[in-house]
Amino acid sequence: MKKLFPLLFLCLLTQLTVAQTPGISRVDPTNWWVGMKTPTLQLMVYGPNAGTLTYTISYPGVKLVKTHTVENKNYAFLDLTLAPGTKAGSFELVGRNGNTVVKRSYELKARDNQPKGQGLTTADFVYLLMPDRFSNADPGNDKFADMADKESDRNSPYLRHGGDLKGVENHLDYLKELGVTALWMTPVLENNQPQTNEGGAMRSAYHGYGFTDQYAVDKRFGGNEAYKALSKAVHAQGMRLVQDAVYNHVGINHWILKDIPFKDWLHQWPTYTNTSYKYQPITDPHSAAIDRKVTLDGWFVPFLPDLNQQNPFVANYLIQNAIWNTETFAVDAWRIDTYMYNDQPFMNRCNAALQAEYPRMLTFGESWVNNTVDQAYYTRNKINFPFKSNQTGGLDFVLYSALLDGVKESGGWDNGANRPYSILAQDAVYENPNTLVTFLENHDTDRFFSVVGEDTDKYKMATTWLLTMRGIPHWYYGTEILMKNFKNPSDAEVRRDFPGGFAGDKENKFTAEGRSKAENDAFTFVKTLANYRKNTPALHSGKMMQYLPQNNTYVYFRYNDKGTVMVATNQNSTPIALDMARFSERAQGFTKAKNALTGEVITDLKTVQLPAKTALVLELMR
Amino acid sequence: MKKLFPLLFLCLLTQLTVAQTPGISRVDPTNWWVGMKTPTLQLMVYGPNAGTLTYTISYPGVKLVKTHTVENKNYAFLDLTLAPGTKAGSFELVGRNGNTVVKRSYELKARDNQPKGQGLTTADFVYLLMPDRFSNADPGNDKFADMADKESDRNSPYLRHGGDLKGVENHLDYLKELGVTALWMTPVLENNQPQTNEGGAMRSAYHGYGFTDQYAVDKRFGGNEAYKALSKAVHAQGMRLVQDAVYNHVGINHWILKDIPFKDWLHQWPTYTNTSYKYQPITDPHSAAIDRKVTLDGWFVPFLPDLNQQNPFVANYLIQNAIWNTETFAVDAWRIDTYMYNDQPFMNRCNAALQAEYPRMLTFGESWVNNTVDQAYYTRNKINFPFKSNQTGGLDFVLYSALLDGVKESGGWDNGANRPYSILAQDAVYENPNTLVTFLENHDTDRFFSVVGEDTDKYKMATTWLLTMRGIPHWYYGTEILMKNFKNPSDAEVRRDFPGGFAGDKENKFTAEGRSKAENDAFTFVKTLANYRKNTPALHSGKMMQYLPQNNTYVYFRYNDKGTVMVATNQNSTPIALDMARFSERAQGFTKAKNALTGEVITDLKTVQLPAKTALVLELMR
Repeated sequence: MKKLFPLLFLCLLTQLTVAQTPGISRVDPTNWWVGMKTPTLQLMVYGPNAGTLTYTISYPGVKLVKTHTVENKNYAFLDLTLAPGTKAGSFELVGRNGNTVVKRSYELKARDNQPKGQGLTTADFVYLLMPDRFSNADPGNDKFADMADKESDRNSPYLRHGGDLKGVENHLDYLKELGVTALWMTPVLENNQPQTNEGGAMRSAYHGYGFTDQYAVDKRFGGNEAYKALSKAVHAQGMRLVQDAVYNHVGINHWILKDIPFKDWLHQWPTYTNTSYKYQPITDPHSAAIDRKVTLDGWFVPFLPDLNQQNPFVANYLIQNAIWNTETFAVDAWRIDTYMYNDQPFMNRCNAALQAEYPRMLTFGESWVNNTVDQAYYTRNKINFPFKSNQTGGLDFVLYSALLDGVKESGGWDNGANRPYSILAQDAVYENPNTLVTFLENHDTDRFFSVVGEDTDKYKMATTWLLTMRGIPHWYYGTEILMKNFKNPSDAEVRRDFPGGFAGDKENKFTAEGRSKAENDAFTFVKTLANYRKNTPALHSGKMMQYLPQNNTYVYFRYNDKGTVMVATNQNSTPIALDMARFSERAQGFTKAKNALTGEVITDLKTVQLPAKTALVLELMR
Repeated sequence: MKKLFPLLFLCLLTQLTVAQTPGISRVDPTNWWVGMKTPTLQLMVYGPNAGTLTYTISYPGVKLVKTHTVENKNYAFLDLTLAPGTKAGSFELVGRNGNTVVKRSYELKARDNQPKGQGLTTADFVYLLMPDRFSNADPGNDKFADMADKESDRNSPYLRHGGDLKGVENHLDYLKELGVTALWMTPVLENNQPQTNEGGAMRSAYHGYGFTDQYAVDKRFGGNEAYKALSKAVHAQGMRLVQDAVYNHVGINHWILKDIPFKDWLHQWPTYTNTSYKYQPITDPHSAAIDRKVTLDGWFVPFLPDLNQQNPFVANYLIQNAIWNTETFAVDAWRIDTYMYNDQPFMNRCNAALQAEYPRMLTFGESWVNNTVDQAYYTRNKINFPFKSNQTGGLDFVLYSALLDGVKESGGWDNGANRPYSILAQDAVYENPNTLVTFLENHDTDRFFSVVGEDTDKYKMATTWLLTMRGIPHWYYGTEILMKNFKNPSDAEVRRDFPGGFAGDKENKFTAEGRSKAENDAFTFVKTLANYRKNTPALHSGKMMQYLPQNNTYVYFRYNDKGTVMVATNQNSTPIALDMARFSERAQGFTKAKNALTGEVITDLKTVQLPAKTALVLELMR
C-alpha cells in the first residue's frame, strides 16, 4: 500500500489553480434544519474559484456572519447564524465576483418527529453486524462500474459480498426474536475506495472504515434512502439505531482530498508515518512529545489519511456531519472508531455538540487498551487527569479480555472468574460503569465460540456473565448460531456471511428449521436470557453486588427495590452445593427462586445446587 | 497452629476479677516528652484493679482531663493535656480508692536533638535486611530461658540464628560503601512468641512481625539500648533509619492479650476467621459487606490476632507508640506491614499524627496488589475514591512485577521493557509517583537473582532500571553478592545468613577478598551505580521522560536544569545502533556523553552503540 501514498501526498500539496469561471458544485452540510439548539452553522462551499466570491444570503433569520477563505481558492467557509423561529425553506446562496454572479439553493428543513438521539441504556442488547456480510436483498446494487472498487465476489473472503441495508431490514424480526433491542452496523457511509493489496491478497473496503463522502450512504448498501428506510423499520420494531463513526481518518479516495482545502486538513509528515498503535504516550505523564504525536497524528494505514481535528474547519466539518447523520437517519447512539487516536479536545467538542442537540445521546468509543486507568481516560471518570473526557460511554475492552480469559481458565488465585471479578472491582474509577458497552468479541477479534474451544458450557457461562453484569452488552452477528473462526489467516475469517442471507445459500439459519440442534440450543439460550434480561429491570438496571470467587464458584446479585436476581457460576467439573449463608446481605428474606432459563422453581434457599460447568440465573422470591 | 487459637480466645474473653489490692504495674506510653506539637496524651494504666482508682496528677502544665474505665477493671485510660511550655521532669500519678493510695512516677523527657523524622527522598537508596540473619555481634543474646522461644539454631532455616543490632552496626561501613543511604530492618520490637508448627517444621518468630511488646526492642537483638546505639551510628554515617511497623495485628503472646482491656481490643469472630488475603473487596464498589469484613478483620494467621483499630483506645495506643518509637529511636521513616488490611481511616489518623510531629516523615505501606488503581488507593492519589488516603508513600508492587517480568522477557507487543514502560505510563493516578518505594524483591518473594535465572546481564539491566527510574529504590540484603534462592520449599530459603556475619563463617563476603569475582563484579556494579545515583541530582530528583520501547530497546531520560542522564537498554542478543534523532526533545544540544559505569566518553551522539543485553547509563554533556 505504501505505493499509493506518495501519489496522494503530491496531489494534496500541489494546488493547481487554473483561471476558471467561479462556480459552486457542492455545499456541505448538504442541508440543515431549523429548530436546532445550536444557532450556528458553518457551510463549506466548494467549486472552481468558490473562494474568490463574495457571498450574501437573504433569508429571514439567517445571517452570514463571516466568510473564511483558505489556501485553496476553490473553497469558502461561511459562518451562519440561524435565529430562533427561523422558518423552514430554501434560501439562495449568492456569490459575486465583479460581474460574475453564482447562485446555489440551500435547504433548511423542518425537523421530523422520528425518534432519534434516544441513546442506549442498560436495558439494551446491541447486535453488531457487517452489512456486506449479513444479507443481500438487492443483487442489483452489489457493484457499480463507476466506483473505484468494481468487484463483488462471494468466493473471495476479502472482496465485497453484496450484503445491503434492505437485507438487514428483512431480518429485523429475527433480531427481535433473539431479544436484540439495538442495531449497530459497521459503517454504512460511502467507501469509494480502491482495492488494496495486503499480504498478497486484494481486499476491498467492505468493512466501511474509509469514508469517501460522509453525506452519502454507500450505494452498494442501498444509499441514503435505504438507510432511512432501515432506520424507520428499526424504530418501528421498538429498537434503536447505532451508527459507527470514524473521525480519525478518511479514505484516501475521499472527494475532499482530490482538491484539499489546505495542507493542514490532514496530519502531514515529512515522510509517511504510521501510528504506533500504542496508547500509553497519550496518558503517560512521562511521555515524549514525538511519541504522543506518532500515536495521535500518525496514519492508521497508508490508505486512511489522518484528519487534523485541531484545525477548526476540520472539526466543524466533522461535528456538523455527525449532527447531520443523526438528524437525517434518526441515529440513537454512536459507536466511535479508533476513539483514542482522535484529538481528545475535539472529541469532547463533538460529544458536547451531539449532547446539546440530543441530551440522551450515548457515544461509545473504541479504545483498545488493557488496563482500567487508560480505559477510564476515554470516558467520564473519577481520575483527575490533566484532560477530562466527557464521553458518556465507551467500549469495555478491559472486561472483554477478562471475560474470555476468565471463562477459559479454571482455578488459580487470580484466574477464572477472578478475572472479571477483579476488573469490576476497579469500577470506582468511572463516573458510571453502567454506560460502558460490554462484549465478548467483535469484527476485529477472534470469534468467541472459537476462543472458548467450541465448548458450549463455556459459551453459555460467558454469555451469562455478559448478559447479567453491569453495562450495556453487545453481541456479534452469528454467534447465536455458533459461527466460529480465528482471525488467522485474516480477519475475513471472522466476517463470514450469515448463512441464509444470500441467494443460493444452502442453509438458512435465520429459521429454526435451518439450524442444527446445537445451533438452535445456542439460539434459544441467548434468546431466553436476552429476553429475560430485557423484561427484568433488576437484572439490567439494578445495582450489582459481587462476592469474592471461592472454590471456583462466582456469585453476584443484581437488585433493586422490586427484585433480586442471583447469578452463580461453577467452573468446576463437579457439582457444588452452595451454602447460601454467606450471601445473606442480599438473599435474606427470600425463600425460593425461579431459574430464569428453565422456569424451574427451587424451594430450598439454604443450599443451592450448582451443576458442573454451569451458570445459574435465579430470580429470588419471597 | 489452630490449636492455639481456642486457648487464647477463651483467655481473652473470660476476665477473672479477683479482689486484689489495687496497683499500677505498667503505664504506656512508658514515657513521654514535653515540646510535642500534639498537646494530648492518653495513658494506659495497668495493674490489679487499676480501673477502680481515682487518679490525680499535680504537675505544672499537665492536666488530667478524663479517666476512662473499661470492661476489665485492671485498666484505666487517662486523657492528659500538656500545656505549651511544660517543663521536662517526672510527675507522680496518684490513684486513690478509699484509704488505698497508689503512686507511680511518670517521666516527661526533654526532646533530644538527634535527627529524626527526616523522611526519605528520591536521593535515597534503602537497604532491607533481617537482623536475625545479617550479623551476630553478641552470641550472649542469642537466646534466653525466660522467653517463649528458647532456641537459637543456625542449622535450622526456620529458627533464630542469633543476628543482632550490634552486628548490623558493625557493618554500616559496608552499606555505606555500597551507596546505601537508609537502613530498613524487618521489625526489631519484641516477638516473645512461641514457636509454631507450620508445614511440619517448627518455626520461630525471627522475622519479627508478631509484637508482644511495642515498647521494647527484642533483647535477642540487643534491646532498646542497642537500637538507640544503632540509630546513632546510622545517623553518624549520614544515613537514615526506617522502622518496620505492624498495626494490623500483634503476636498472640502480646502482654496485653494475657489480660485484655475489653473484648473489642481485637476483631472477634464467632469461629476463627482468617483474612481472605484479597484486596478487591476493599475498593470494589460492588463488594459485599462480609467480603470486606473478612479481608479487613479476618486474622492474618491464627497466632497473629487482629487489632480493632476502629476502637479509639486501640487507635490511640498504636499511634502514640508510633510517635514514641520515632522519638526514642530517632526513626526517619516507617514501612508499614500489611497496610491494606488495616482500617484505612485509622491509618490516615496515624499518618497524620506522625506528620504533625515530623512534617518530613515518609510512611510507605505494604499493599500487595497487582494493578495501579488498587495501588493508588493506599497512597495520595488523583482518583476520587469514596475514601482518600493521606499516606505519603507506598511500596510499588505493581512496578515490582513489571520490572521482573519485563527483564525476563524479550520482544512481544506488551512484553519485555513494555511492562515497566506501561506501568510508569499510568503514573497520572498518583499525587507524586516519586514517593513510591520501588524494589526487585523482599523477604517475602523469590530472590531476584534466581528469578532472572542467575543471568548477570538481566541482573544488571533490572538493577539499572530500579536505580534510574522514578521513585525511592530499596534493595534486599545479599543481592549485591548474588545471594539467591526461591521461596520453595519455604521463605527461609530467601532469608539465609549473610556470609561473614556470623562467627565461624568460612567466607566473609563483607570484604572484597571474601567475594568471588562474580560477586565482586555484582557488588561493584551496584556500588558504582548507587553512588553515581546518589551524587547525580538529575538522576534521582530530575523529571523522567520515557520513550516507547522499540525493537526491544527502551530509552528514557532523567533531567533537570543542571543535567540530563540517558538510560538505554537493549534486550536483544545482538548489538543495536541507536539512532538518536528520535530523542531530540531531550538530547538536542548535547554533543557527547559519559558512561556512568565505565567513565568512557562517547563523542558521537548521532548514533549510540548499544551492546547486546545491556543497559547504558549516559550522562549527556554539551
